[in-house]
Amino acid sequence: MSGLVLHPLNAALIPLLGEWQGPGEGTYPTIESFSYGETLVFGHVGKPFVAMNQRTSARGSGLPLHAEAGYFRPQGDGTVELVVSQPSGIVEILTGSITETEAGVEVDMSSVGVHTTPSAKLVRETRRRYVAEGDTLTCDFWMAAMGEPLTHHLRSSLIRRA
Amino acid sequence: MSGLVLHPLNAALIPLLGEWQGPGEGTYPTIESFSYGETLVFGHVGKPFVAMNQRTSARGSGLPLHAEAGYFRPQGDGTVELVVSQPSGIVEILTGSITETEAGVEVDMSSVGVHTTPSAKLVRETRRRYVAEGDTLTCDFWMAAMGEPLTHHLRSSLIRRA
Repeated sequence: MSGLVLHPLNAALIPLLGEWQGPGEGTYPTIESFSYGETLVFGHVGKPFVAMNQRTSARGSGLPLHAEAGYFRPQGDGTVELVVSQPSGIVEILTGSITETEAGVEVDMSSVGVHTTPSAKLVRETRRRYVAEGDTLTCDFWMAAMGEPLTHHLRSSLIRRA
Repeated sequence: MSGLVLHPLNAALIPLLGEWQGPGEGTYPTIESFSYGETLVFGHVGKPFVAMNQRTSARGSGLPLHAEAGYFRPQGDGTVELVVSQPSGIVEILTGSITETEAGVEVDMSSVGVHTTPSAKLVRETRRRYVAEGDTLTCDFWMAAMGEPLTHHLRSSLIRRA
């Protein structure tokens, strides 16, 4: 995808582009804490969005755990929209801000809609924050689910691979 | 992803698995008809879902047009759920049926929810049908948008590449 000229609206998201890998930790009041390995790819095709593709695997066995795919839509005024689909039967629509920092960028978004398939577990609300600083990327995810209020659930600390 | 054992719930979707390519045609009452090239990949990681990743490009220039990513969730009773996100700022939740045929499978689904980001064009309703027969796959997409009722929008005729 890298042969195509970046769309100007994506300029502030340049620090995210590439492939990232590293460990993550999951916690939530209703479950036992767990750790995982994450691979996260941000790419562009010259159009005004950035595609995100993520997968996680169990530490040790390497077996697949979670996955998700979505698209960032920078609006050109420092705000951004994100759509995400997950194999757990969840789709999210989020809006938030892109803040350019000295060493990279911070993207912080809250859900304006979380919707689930009939058989999926209900998630009412989410928040996502991606902080890129050079070749490190920290990802945080909050959710309101299982009767809990919006609560921190996942943090991963990734290193740029490509 | 092919080194992992297929989850039994995915058995009826085996005819979809792989990479498909071919031409498509788009029509809608509010726009000029257009043609495109499509690449569509269905994969699994041993869990009870099938990941879908699609992209289209303009005939001639080869420049990217549409893209989407999602997950099929077969329920084991002949029904299936699908979540999809699109860079146009749309997420879809669909439910429908998996019908095994002599030469493959037909998956026909209608939206139970279509949701859009604040800046996206409104889509009220969608229907998707995927018909695999051996090494050919026919994809149809209907949508209700721009004030039109549910109307056929896209058809692509793909050949298995992998």
